[in-house]
Amino acid sequence: MTKPIRVTVWNEGRHEKKSPEVAKVYPRGIHGAIAEGLRKCPDLEVVKTATLDEDAEHGLPEEVLAKTDVLTWWGHMAHKDVSDAVVDRVQKHVLEGMGLIVLHSGHYSKPFRRLMGTGCGLKWREAAEQERLWVVRPGHPIVEGLGEYLELAHTEMYGEFFDVPQPDELIFISWFEGGDVFRSGCCWDRGKGKVFYFRPGHETFPIYYDAAVVRVLQNACRWAARPVGSPFSLAAPNVKVPLNPIPKKA
Amino acid sequence: MTKPIRVTVWNEGRHEKKSPEVAKVYPRGIHGAIAEGLRKCPDLEVVKTATLDEDAEHGLPEEVLAKTDVLTWWGHMAHKDVSDAVVDRVQKHVLEGMGLIVLHSGHYSKPFRRLMGTGCGLKWREAAEQERLWVVRPGHPIVEGLGEYLELAHTEMYGEFFDVPQPDELIFISWFEGGDVFRSGCCWDRGKGKVFYFRPGHETFPIYYDAAVVRVLQNACRWAARPVGSPFSLAAPNVKVPLNPIPKKA
Amino acid sequence: MTKPIRVTVWNEGRHEKKSPEVAKVYPRGIHGAIAEGLRKCPDLEVVKTATLDEDAEHGLPEEVLAKTDVLTWWGHMAHKDVSDAVVDRVQKHVLEGMGLIVLHSGHYSKPFRRLMGTGCGLKWREAAEQERLWVVRPGHPIVEGLGEYLELAHTEMYGEFFDVPQPDELIFISWFEGGDVFRSGCCWDRGKGKVFYFRPGHETFPIYYDAAVVRVLQNACRWAARPVGSPFSLAAPNVKVPLNPIPKKA
Amino acid sequence: MTKPIRVTVWNEGRHEKKSPEVAKVYPRGIHGAIAEGLRKCPDLEVVKTATLDEDAEHGLPEEVLAKTDVLTWWGHMAHKDVSDAVVDRVQKHVLEGMGLIVLHSGHYSKPFRRLMGTGCGLKWREAAEQERLWVVRPGHPIVEGLGEYLELAHTEMYGEFFDVPQPDELIFISWFEGGDVFRSGCCWDRGKGKVFYFRPGHETFPIYYDAAVVRVLQNACRWAARPVGSPFSLAAPNVKVPLNPIPKKA
Repeated sequence: MTKPIRVTVWNEGRHEKKSPEVAKVYPRGIHGAIAEGLRKCPDLEVVKTATLDEDAEHGLPEEVLAKTDVLTWWGHMAHKDVSDAVVDRVQKHVLEGMGLIVLHSGHYSKPFRRLMGTGCGLKWREAAEQERLWVVRPGHPIVEGLGEYLELAHTEMYGEFFDVPQPDELIFISWFEGGDVFRSGCCWDRGKGKVFYFRPGHETFPIYYDAAVVRVLQNACRWAARPVGSPFSLAAPNVKVPLNPIPKKA
Repeated sequence: MTKPIRVTVWNEGRHEKKSPEVAKVYPRGIHGAIAEGLRKCPDLEVVKTATLDEDAEHGLPEEVLAKTDVLTWWGHMAHKDVSDAVVDRVQKHVLEGMGLIVLHSGHYSKPFRRLMGTGCGLKWREAAEQERLWVVRPGHPIVEGLGEYLELAHTEMYGEFFDVPQPDELIFISWFEGGDVFRSGCCWDRGKGKVFYFRPGHETFPIYYDAAVVRVLQNACRWAARPVGSPFSLAAPNVKVPLNPIPKKA
Repeated sequence: MTKPIRVTVWNEGRHEKKSPEVAKVYPRGIHGAIAEGLRKCPDLEVVKTATLDEDAEHGLPEEVLAKTDVLTWWGHMAHKDVSDAVVDRVQKHVLEGMGLIVLHSGHYSKPFRRLMGTGCGLKWREAAEQERLWVVRPGHPIVEGLGEYLELAHTEMYGEFFDVPQPDELIFISWFEGGDVFRSGCCWDRGKGKVFYFRPGHETFPIYYDAAVVRVLQNACRWAARPVGSPFSLAAPNVKVPLNPIPKKA
Repeated sequence: MTKPIRVTVWNEGRHEKKSPEVAKVYPRGIHGAIAEGLRKCPDLEVVKTATLDEDAEHGLPEEVLAKTDVLTWWGHMAHKDVSDAVVDRVQKHVLEGMGLIVLHSGHYSKPFRRLMGTGCGLKWREAAEQERLWVVRPGHPIVEGLGEYLELAHTEMYGEFFDVPQPDELIFISWFEGGDVFRSGCCWDRGKGKVFYFRPGHETFPIYYDAAVVRVLQNACRWAARPVGSPFSLAAPNVKVPLNPIPKKA
């Protein structure tokens, strides 16, 4: 039997503490809601939820990432409080194969910006707009079980230009009531690892309880899971190698 | 001084003859309107406009394509009447470096489907909807001089899923009033040639007189122009080659 | 328990009948050797091997493709004898999600050329050269369990320029003794389906018994398998749709 | 008449000072040799050459980058001495449209690693090996005027895996005598800017005098030049926008 995919769910976790409105929507934290959705699948194991203020390493010490196949990341108001040492560690693990799923306002988090190399800015507006996320890659593992689009009734708008490298695979494009579009589901490879950015989610809209959003997160964990069995290492950045012996032919 | 880019503008040309409504919008034909927009630029030379019923080769004999740097293609109701020999010729010239700009309903034309390898289907609806084409590749030659988006007041809607290979470069995403999105400006390389699909344009909406649309067409011709000076040939498909002599070192 | 992936192994099958030399290397046919390698994995089920001369449909009637998750294709001397109706059917099934693995001289087969839209030509030379296939996408499912490169002692050389669209994912690059390189493992999406081209294989070299080559084929079948559970259909190419009702908000 | 493209040539410049061997190959510095090659073209204007030790800003203050269309970068032994403020500035200008051409050991420079988001490591070996750079994108502006490959008699080897994001456009693949391959010419978009990595070049091999290498650098400057006339700005990373007024229809 295949081992379950080990997921660590990270959340900044400050909105929930500061705002009663957010705490009401997410009484177990945004991380709690995301973990709950993933735990419905026996092939996914949430090994840990972690938050910014858990400890000096934000709950992400080396030993946690070493046994994490996929890390999900939600942050918003405190990106700057994430320590550079933890960002270095997350980047290193992604390059060695750990999957990273970056959610909503995580577009401006330090790990995402580090891995993209661009500004990662965008337009935004809070007007509780209707959003439709259209599938533009219908055969992709991330959209298994979904229809042609996801519909969300009240969302914060994110608009183009989204300053990221052109995605290796573009999965969703959002339509917003107010006249904007957004590349809402984007995949990139970095080293041996996979990165998925998924737009939906806001601290005061109950997005992470939506069945289709939950399904996307489950699918994305499967897609992004650390490759099993590849012995290839990227540990040493620049390796001096001897002349490659061309084997003698029989 | 650099020689001007030689453009051939192709149009099916049947709507204009059959429908007084279309003839009123495009009295010189859709090809006439497109050619007019390109002729405003001294670096672009419209060497020919051609239509389906011009002759047995639809005005695109070998000698025309041999001196065409960029071919623009508009077709709709008579895709099936385009001869396979002409499709073969267009494909051959694209692979050898000719640019191809496919417009609106040309998404379902034979040359485009041949070069894509996919079904090229999409959703559509005629409800004179508002369309916004958002720029998602702001440094690309095709968007020079444009703002963040193009606005068109009345358009036919095209919606996803658009069954094409993921574009090498995605330039525009359209937003439609009725809740749809579309990848409206897409670039692909094929052989030594470039292909650009651009969505706007309809036989009864005066899209090809819009200044921003005209600007996109001008820019696209410059981007897609046949490479100058590359002696590389793709003429022979499978070439048996001798052992490549590794030069003696000094 | 997950159902096994259903693989159909197709082989032209003429070399084996005409040449005693080939028959000696592949006594059960090239298809037999490939099927043998796949059958070692319990999660892969070779539902059928088929050859060009099996019947008028080359062993690939609609009912076979309808229950095929992945089709592998080997052809060389008789590409032109493959019926266009079968090519249409293979293309349709790929667009609807069937995986297609094209091997070696299959680069010039009708289904591959149809799906690429380009000439698909290359350089070649038969000099029993040493080949090394370097992994350039180390986190990809197709290279699971492999090292940094595969080594083959005697191969037919294939050289650039390989006239295909730039791969969506480039997995292997080959080095040849005589001074050539080749993009030897290339992935493309077409509709809902995946296409993988893998260079190694020749009728007189026992390539398909090589353990690393077999491993690549097994991995590729898993990667290319028809998506499970996505209800999305591409059946109708151009669909007229009504105005999308935007749901009323609560 | 079009204005010339303004190029700034940056070189670490330490090898030349420390090693008589290097100074003999490059008496005017590596930057001097590169500038010399670019100055042969009237459409290219080398506005400045700059080196690490020129001043506290390594010769790259804001006012220099503000009037630079393309920056070329060569560094090797002193990547760590490049100030982070200069790296920030280079990144900002690339995102706003400045082209960046990174040469040889510049693969491990701070600006390149910043823009890639990956480790940027590779294999290497100094054995004065024969190298062939095969063109795999024959219609690309960077290969104008070149043949099927470039040949260099004595080079330092760089081998895969090269830990960069898959290039948006792969232009050259190198073959090395000792059995290695390398993605030697790679293009990426970042924001409005273009990045080209080109492998050849070494402090003790006279690579930058080679006519074909010089031609590549000239072509690359033209390809990477800052877009003219696009008023689009990426200056503000996250912009709160009002509801987009949908224009009233006539």
